[in-house]
Amino acid sequence: MSMNTTVSRAEFTARYFVESSVPAEKMAQVIAGEQSSGTFLSLPGETAQLKERSRARVVNIHSLPPALEPSLQSAYVERRGSHGVFHRAEIEIAFPVENVGCNLPVLLATLAGNLFELGEVTGLRLLDLDMPVNYASQFPGPAFSIEGTRRLAGVHGRPMIGTIIKPSIGLTAEQTAAMVDDLCGAGIDFIKDDELIANPPYEPFERRVAAVMPVLHKHADRLGRMPMYAFNISGSIDDMLRHHDTVLQAGGTCVMVSVNWAGFAGVEHLRRHSQLPIHGHRNGWGSLTRHAALGFSFEAYQKLWRLAGVDHLHVNGLRSKFWEADESVLRSARACLSPFAGVPALMPVFSSGQWAAQAPDMYRQLQSTDLMHLAGGGIIGHPDGIHAGVASMREGWDAAVAGKSLDSYALTHPALSRALSHFGRM
Amino acid sequence: MSMNTTVSRAEFTARYFVESSVPAEKMAQVIAGEQSSGTFLSLPGETAQLKERSRARVVNIHSLPPALEPSLQSAYVERRGSHGVFHRAEIEIAFPVENVGCNLPVLLATLAGNLFELGEVTGLRLLDLDMPVNYASQFPGPAFSIEGTRRLAGVHGRPMIGTIIKPSIGLTAEQTAAMVDDLCGAGIDFIKDDELIANPPYEPFERRVAAVMPVLHKHADRLGRMPMYAFNISGSIDDMLRHHDTVLQAGGTCVMVSVNWAGFAGVEHLRRHSQLPIHGHRNGWGSLTRHAALGFSFEAYQKLWRLAGVDHLHVNGLRSKFWEADESVLRSARACLSPFAGVPALMPVFSSGQWAAQAPDMYRQLQSTDLMHLAGGGIIGHPDGIHAGVASMREGWDAAVAGKSLDSYALTHPALSRALSHFGRM
Repeated sequence: MSMNTTVSRAEFTARYFVESSVPAEKMAQVIAGEQSSGTFLSLPGETAQLKERSRARVVNIHSLPPALEPSLQSAYVERRGSHGVFHRAEIEIAFPVENVGCNLPVLLATLAGNLFELGEVTGLRLLDLDMPVNYASQFPGPAFSIEGTRRLAGVHGRPMIGTIIKPSIGLTAEQTAAMVDDLCGAGIDFIKDDELIANPPYEPFERRVAAVMPVLHKHADRLGRMPMYAFNISGSIDDMLRHHDTVLQAGGTCVMVSVNWAGFAGVEHLRRHSQLPIHGHRNGWGSLTRHAALGFSFEAYQKLWRLAGVDHLHVNGLRSKFWEADESVLRSARACLSPFAGVPALMPVFSSGQWAAQAPDMYRQLQSTDLMHLAGGGIIGHPDGIHAGVASMREGWDAAVAGKSLDSYALTHPALSRALSHFGRM
Repeated sequence: MSMNTTVSRAEFTARYFVESSVPAEKMAQVIAGEQSSGTFLSLPGETAQLKERSRARVVNIHSLPPALEPSLQSAYVERRGSHGVFHRAEIEIAFPVENVGCNLPVLLATLAGNLFELGEVTGLRLLDLDMPVNYASQFPGPAFSIEGTRRLAGVHGRPMIGTIIKPSIGLTAEQTAAMVDDLCGAGIDFIKDDELIANPPYEPFERRVAAVMPVLHKHADRLGRMPMYAFNISGSIDDMLRHHDTVLQAGGTCVMVSVNWAGFAGVEHLRRHSQLPIHGHRNGWGSLTRHAALGFSFEAYQKLWRLAGVDHLHVNGLRSKFWEADESVLRSARACLSPFAGVPALMPVFSSGQWAAQAPDMYRQLQSTDLMHLAGGGIIGHPDGIHAGVASMREGWDAAVAGKSLDSYALTHPALSRALSHFGRM
């Protein structure tokens, strides 16, 4: 069912999966009302003019087969009784841009606010969103995106091969620097802090930067490019800005933030201050997405962080240690790389349980090397050492891009060959 | 099963519901590892000393009856196969304070990060957390709490009766001010903006404040107390601080923030700047809590926002239009009022579908009037007008505190009587 009214006002749109105890048409109207000019009663203040300016409208309803059990419990439905049918649909709602303006927290309150709690709702997921280019352009967006990241890292025409400093937390600054030295010596492109370490009392942020940066500079002199290190600056606003400045002044090229917990206002503020790419870590994301009838799809989520100005965003990995299916991971990566209202693309970051073997599937599915491929054990655990670990990842990608099988490519590439025989058995 | 090791280090603890394809004992160890000093391999860097300082430990495992179907899908489990049994338990994990320090985003990454996505996990919910007083005291916490809010509003010994400006969005500043005038004239204690309106292009924030504040001052002169108006300042960091200052300079007494979307860094930053109580709006909360095997319990959630420095927090209402069961709403309100590591209490805010009738159940269950009771239609839709609407709410609470039934109290209180006959039929 399509309901295209001619409306001259500028609008952004949201597409939801909705399951409810009332028919989808009614539910869509309730959501449009609640999330715009809704009220408890028909009030004298709610004039036709106000509605025309402010009321969200239902653009489309695509019915889906109903469910006989609710996906999510609702005491409201239990109290009122249901007809034993839970209506399902994908609905699309258009909101006036003028209701929100350039305001990420209010955009979120509008797209993803109280609607999750409505009594009739037994399932609700924000699937996607879209907006006019001249509205999207009011938000900061990625300052570096893929091109800017490649330029700073000096890596072109192939994926950025990276790793994570482990153990996640507990290393001294000196131990971290020694590990960075080994990794850079092995030809790594990108290293990141774990999300659990930022500025712990036992080893303050400044000391970590002071220990790591000279190592990066040393290898930059040798390589003609500086391996990119994403320092985790997640923290208070003042800490994030100060730590960004510490990294910048030391000649570093990337900062990392736990986006869900710094929050939209925090990340946007950092972005407006930052002179470095922002590596977006999405830890906690599982809580927002793991139930198919609740929360957010990654397609919508990445657009919101793209507006806020993140440059890289994690997408898990193929055949990873995480819950997510490979096709979902690939869909996420494609979303990061896809056009969205003129906002620059995100560099997708693949990680968890990765080694050289995932490269061919990734390349065949994405037809792109604009990504970061992070391996932990797949690099550090290579039987011939870290250098061979990094080499095996690059060789895996060389084979993938050349359209050759890993097995045949491995015949002339010993690092890949050893990776296949070692990790292939695990 | 209890595993009390003597550990001298300071720790904070988290209690989770966990469902997994592997036994709870193993899952608990995996989570403790992943969320502290875990690594892909046993590395030379991970010394015994590092583990002792940094490794989280499993404090307790309380087994629950297993499930035969997973609560949440996991491609990892499907790939590896399961034994058709999904182990369930409540587990408690202790994390070293030194891993995090005073850092809300990293505290969240530790308590609620990647663990939601672990492949073996088919259910995970943060149920509760606790921490030492001298760790909690490093976070800002509520500056006003209940006492400070009451002092600014001049309301003591009874709940604060409040309402929300509706339509949610679309009113001009003058229309809003006219509504505020009516509400203050009717004796209201508290008014809030809807979460959908903050600083829309068609009616900027400053104009709304400029129109509303003189009305509040006029009634303050008359009443000897100024009704509290929570202006929604949700927005960028700069906007939030500037709009806070606008409200403060105009003599206002409260600001409101959509906490999930401003985020922990944003709310904490506002708190450190603010000279006014922060009214915490939790819109979007449903996405984090509506599935019982995923996300966050309110008990844990309110503690996190309490650390960040929110003063009031929404808890829905009894017999509301939302999905939540009454016992859950009451549990949330009790959580706001309960001691937590020396951090001041939150004022719980009840709303949605409220009128005088909920007061006796609320009081009987909570034995407290330290709360806000917000009614929309229950005040504005009273058949004898807004004045009678506010009066009926107060009379409902007077009856509740006096231990009298609403029906008997209504015999001598016409506003309550009319509310019962009007809303009682709806």
